[in-house]
Amino acid sequence: MFVQRTLRQAIKAQSAFSSPSLNAARILSSRFYSTQLAPLDASKLKVNASKNKKPLQDNSQLVFGKTFTDNMLVVEWDATKGWGTPEIKEYNNLSLDPSAVVFHYSFECFEGMKAYKDKDGKTRLFRPDMNMKRFNRSAQRIALPGFESEELTKLIGEFLKVDDRWIPKGRGYSLYLRPTMIGTQASLGVGASNKAMIFLIASPVGPYFPSGFAAVNLLATSEKVRAWPGGTGDAKIGGNYAPCVRPQLEANKEGFQQNLWLFGPEHQVTEVGTMNCFVFWKNENGGKFLFKIHYNGHDIHVPLDPSDKTSQAGKLTKRINDTIMDIQYGDIEGPKGWSVVV
Amino acid sequence: MFVQRTLRQAIKAQSAFSSPSLNAARILSSRFYSTQLAPLDASKLKVNASKNKKPLQDNSQLVFGKTFTDNMLVVEWDATKGWGTPEIKEYNNLSLDPSAVVFHYSFECFEGMKAYKDKDGKTRLFRPDMNMKRFNRSAQRIALPGFESEELTKLIGEFLKVDDRWIPKGRGYSLYLRPTMIGTQASLGVGASNKAMIFLIASPVGPYFPSGFAAVNLLATSEKVRAWPGGTGDAKIGGNYAPCVRPQLEANKEGFQQNLWLFGPEHQVTEVGTMNCFVFWKNENGGKFLFKIHYNGHDIHVPLDPSDKTSQAGKLTKRINDTIMDIQYGDIEGPKGWSVVV
Repeated sequence: MFVQRTLRQAIKAQSAFSSPSLNAARILSSRFYSTQLAPLDASKLKVNASKNKKPLQDNSQLVFGKTFTDNMLVVEWDATKGWGTPEIKEYNNLSLDPSAVVFHYSFECFEGMKAYKDKDGKTRLFRPDMNMKRFNRSAQRIALPGFESEELTKLIGEFLKVDDRWIPKGRGYSLYLRPTMIGTQASLGVGASNKAMIFLIASPVGPYFPSGFAAVNLLATSEKVRAWPGGTGDAKIGGNYAPCVRPQLEANKEGFQQNLWLFGPEHQVTEVGTMNCFVFWKNENGGKFLFKIHYNGHDIHVPLDPSDKTSQAGKLTKRINDTIMDIQYGDIEGPKGWSVVV
Repeated sequence: MFVQRTLRQAIKAQSAFSSPSLNAARILSSRFYSTQLAPLDASKLKVNASKNKKPLQDNSQLVFGKTFTDNMLVVEWDATKGWGTPEIKEYNNLSLDPSAVVFHYSFECFEGMKAYKDKDGKTRLFRPDMNMKRFNRSAQRIALPGFESEELTKLIGEFLKVDDRWIPKGRGYSLYLRPTMIGTQASLGVGASNKAMIFLIASPVGPYFPSGFAAVNLLATSEKVRAWPGGTGDAKIGGNYAPCVRPQLEANKEGFQQNLWLFGPEHQVTEVGTMNCFVFWKNENGGKFLFKIHYNGHDIHVPLDPSDKTSQAGKLTKRINDTIMDIQYGDIEGPKGWSVVV
């Protein structure tokens, strides 16, 4: 017997899963697994915090993602039961079967978010709902389970209370949070993982680049392609990252800090290495030129503010950056719901 | 100062790394790390085999990649020292820092190869040099270290001696070998991993599909794209796999076993889910039609041999399959160097 549904119908059914909403997550779980799965529930949290207090580093010594706090957050998922008991426990190695699918088929996705100390000593998150939305969408793209966004945000809040002393004070400094989901099924057949784990680790950080808030040189890269239609560029999954490292090393050797990723015969811009890329398009003659994009053998100069020797940014860039930081550190009120005090 | 080398030169320098040869591996290691790195050396092998002998399964009970042998092979790499001491030891969990880059950025690649028992009880590998060549190429694509192919083949031979009792006898049965390389640096900055590990695990297997050697139904898939120009389709890296699972689940729900992956406006065929895809192109009217590719709402039927009720294959497919298996199991001599008796 042949199934007579059209490819169009198949695609329609498939795109129902592409919604980042919790409903889609539930549909995914219930369709592929069971209908009676435990949701992620922050009220079940067990806190077994570390008794060891590692020494803190001075802000000036912080290197991105090298030092981690005393504890981590872990919660496991099973296809027959759903989400288990969340636990905050001492930061420690993960012990996994060597056949776990995370090692072979890249069942892994993550978020990068930060906790900021405001002038009153309160801890703030910046738009965590958006992180949770993307985290769910990324997980679903690779058939990992959905989860209740608000519950994970609550768990992150509890984690921040436990490791509060690790949140650096001072503008430009924050506690970087890395919620990660991995597939842990111990089996080499390629299919949806019947076991998964969310873990969260946290690292006190300053600016990502040791050079601080400064202009960077970009190498326009078209031979290697990072994102493509029908691909995974819209999901924050591990598989998007490792293939970009060789091109980045090559860019570095040529004197550029990052790649400007291009796609297709029109060389459309998809993104820039490790940072966001905003384009303000205006037909004008700008001021002096201080940094460059290197494209097709030519340097394209982007105007910076010549009066600002420190930050090496254009006026608009600086205004955007300052305003976002003002909101992140609670110096001004941002749009409703952007700042979450935990 | 601006670097004035052209993008063309940059790309030329980069493609020097794309060669799968050992030289390229050495160049990669020496350029990015140090020039005095220890090569992979099978003569350093330490064997600490498990004292526990797990019970063997009957051939009829084997499920692909579910059961593993008593031991595993592990060798670690460090950017400042090169390859360490290879060890065969009891199959056991890997213990890794939760910030290890394999969990976040998919620094992982692998091979799938098999050990066969011939009629004299000898163990044979089928073209292991080709596996090693691709394994090196995959590792280099994601800035993991190169290694000496012949040395890893020797280590696999030693591993097979230790776990010899696990190699199933009988045509269609074999010991599946999974050499895997992962990046183990404990740091969240995106860059080349300064630590890595090759591990090999092994699983006794029968045919990949429980249905045995039988025709499958394919769903032609163009909305999601598995391989693309400038991408990673030519490397056997983890990141290629997880994104294919949702489309595969969708295909399964529609009654198809696998996806036939298409690319671009011309719908060029790139590959088929978990299997090799050979096309024999001939303008002819074949015999009866027994299975199908479902493309764009229509079923495309591929002729099978109506006289063969068991294998459901065309005559050419069966001839190719039988000949390859004859060589793999040592029943006939293949081209020089294809079979390696370990």
